[in-house]
Amino acid sequence: MCAYIIGAGSTRFGEHWELGIRNMISYASRKAIEHAGIKTENIDSAFVANCFGSLITGQSNVSAIAGDELGIQNTVQISGGDDAGSRAIMHAVNMVDSGKSKAAIVIGVEKTSDISSSQMLRMISHMTSSEEAASGATLASLYAMMTKKHMWLYGTTEEQMAMSSVKNHSNAMKNEISQFKISVTKEKVIASPIVADPLRVLNSAVASDGCSAVIICNEAMAKKSMEKIRIAGMGSGADYLAVASRENIAELNAVKTAVENALKSAGMKLRDIDFAEVHDVFSIAEIMCIEAMGFAKAGEGGKFIKEGHGNLDGKIPINPSGGLKGCGHPFAATGVRQAIEAFYQLTGNAGERQVKNAKCCIAQTLSGSGSSAAVNIFQRVD
Amino acid sequence: MCAYIIGAGSTRFGEHWELGIRNMISYASRKAIEHAGIKTENIDSAFVANCFGSLITGQSNVSAIAGDELGIQNTVQISGGDDAGSRAIMHAVNMVDSGKSKAAIVIGVEKTSDISSSQMLRMISHMTSSEEAASGATLASLYAMMTKKHMWLYGTTEEQMAMSSVKNHSNAMKNEISQFKISVTKEKVIASPIVADPLRVLNSAVASDGCSAVIICNEAMAKKSMEKIRIAGMGSGADYLAVASRENIAELNAVKTAVENALKSAGMKLRDIDFAEVHDVFSIAEIMCIEAMGFAKAGEGGKFIKEGHGNLDGKIPINPSGGLKGCGHPFAATGVRQAIEAFYQLTGNAGERQVKNAKCCIAQTLSGSGSSAAVNIFQRVD
Repeated sequence: MCAYIIGAGSTRFGEHWELGIRNMISYASRKAIEHAGIKTENIDSAFVANCFGSLITGQSNVSAIAGDELGIQNTVQISGGDDAGSRAIMHAVNMVDSGKSKAAIVIGVEKTSDISSSQMLRMISHMTSSEEAASGATLASLYAMMTKKHMWLYGTTEEQMAMSSVKNHSNAMKNEISQFKISVTKEKVIASPIVADPLRVLNSAVASDGCSAVIICNEAMAKKSMEKIRIAGMGSGADYLAVASRENIAELNAVKTAVENALKSAGMKLRDIDFAEVHDVFSIAEIMCIEAMGFAKAGEGGKFIKEGHGNLDGKIPINPSGGLKGCGHPFAATGVRQAIEAFYQLTGNAGERQVKNAKCCIAQTLSGSGSSAAVNIFQRVD
Repeated sequence: MCAYIIGAGSTRFGEHWELGIRNMISYASRKAIEHAGIKTENIDSAFVANCFGSLITGQSNVSAIAGDELGIQNTVQISGGDDAGSRAIMHAVNMVDSGKSKAAIVIGVEKTSDISSSQMLRMISHMTSSEEAASGATLASLYAMMTKKHMWLYGTTEEQMAMSSVKNHSNAMKNEISQFKISVTKEKVIASPIVADPLRVLNSAVASDGCSAVIICNEAMAKKSMEKIRIAGMGSGADYLAVASRENIAELNAVKTAVENALKSAGMKLRDIDFAEVHDVFSIAEIMCIEAMGFAKAGEGGKFIKEGHGNLDGKIPINPSGGLKGCGHPFAATGVRQAIEAFYQLTGNAGERQVKNAKCCIAQTLSGSGSSAAVNIFQRVD
């Protein structure tokens, strides 16, 4: 596999009342292009990830907006679940790797502020099983059930979950683009209001507005670039769409499969990985991802977090960016935002949140309640 | 480029009140897999094109439904405009061609019956420019403006447009999966009610329910298959999203660019093409596509149709399937349905609508009012 990231740009994640989808695409894309030191004319394809443009802002053809804004002739829109950004990267790599594109821009964008919380609840359930959604299960309630099972099976505690939020907000304070630069304590998390018992507000990532973009190119173009990272591996996994169909709802099988496939495609072992960006849409998701990825045994993800192994100076830093909890979660933008974190970390430009001697990053997103997962592995180029 | 189609399956297009997205995916996919003579386990990736699942049926994660139904670990959803089905084929080819997939299933699916006509009007405008949509321009009214310009510039007539519908309904009568197996006369088209002056009901394709699927595989797997066609070329094009921004609204520049790119990638000239499937969402669109593709000079598309050059026994049969007008138009399914037509024609199995000695097919879709276009070229394997 031969494809590189040579530039990255992003809006801050947050509530951008003053910006529409087109404005955000324009801002992030131009930053990425400038960062890569190339011209828009050098880019021959655009992969645009967006999930809810049609429902929220009446724009279903978001790739056409990007094409219009940037003057790129070959555009495609990737939608589906909140792993869409990671998948847009994968398919840009396929196109570059098969020689049909020299340089692609991957854009993940979402505008979610323009609807009410109740509309948002209903909308997010569009990513889950229709049968479960129709019986009233929201995404939070599905994750709450997984949490209860995880607690019952393994003794996972509210305190362990709180430590995930503490870590991620602490990291987010060092990340320019993050939405929630707030310091939270374990006590504050455990005292925050319940969303779906036992998950609390401070255990839950928030739907944000945001746009992230990266430039992916072939070797010839990457050679001319000062800063670059290599896409070393990619993997996908899937699970039953309905949580109720799964054998053990305290496991994320899609993540497990995706990580195995990504490591295999990279010819790597888990020990080659220096840090991870994972899909902490709820604290329990971070814990279950850590287990599914193999950083901790089943049931020991909470302990892993509590013992600080996922901290910036821990064994395997988890979400040095601040993750979904700290950065905010503009659905389709998240997978691209993770690639940006990999870029900054692996080129040694992550500032205060720099993971020491980071050579290899695994980045994972999943869709809805875990029906699919996408994993990309990024590698430093020495 | 090395990728083949070895099997095809489709629901009938129409109003499927008794079927949901999952049912249609299941039906078309299983038909395609059976037709290819393979097992689901042989398929390692799924490309699912869908535009309006979220808005219409509360299912934004349609690729997850397909993954769940078929047990495929690597799925991706392509959305955007109504060229999504053609683009899903392109990216499946990229993945097979880059060696990362042995066999992919491409599924185009749309369920549109479940909303009212006024909701549909609003929804379709999600594919066009937000500014034009906000000022009340529907898709039909945008095409009506293009028609008026085309008439004014070139003298295109209602009669010429009517002949496009006559031809396409005549072809659709010979196509098992088509929605509108009705014989219409020129007089009947011209007497049908106005949708947006001068476009009439019988000049307009209808949003349908439907699902089409094809199996795309590498050479090794194709060798074992009795029937196959080769994907010989692919091309994309884009234009201003807002019709108002275009220099000449009687031209589809996205189509022109996409055809040029596809022919170039196939190493072919237009004279190598034996028949075409084009995006006749309105009669004027068929005429403008014929011109943009180069089958007729600018302004002579209407004459081309009226003189019968696009008929089944004409110089270049246009839409032997019946096109969007005859088959119905389940947005994201249309590009895949075109590939199915190519498969039947190029393997000599198109029955009563067989194009004689067909060796090469060009298939083109566009999004909304022409902001982007996607073209695939399919070739007989002797």
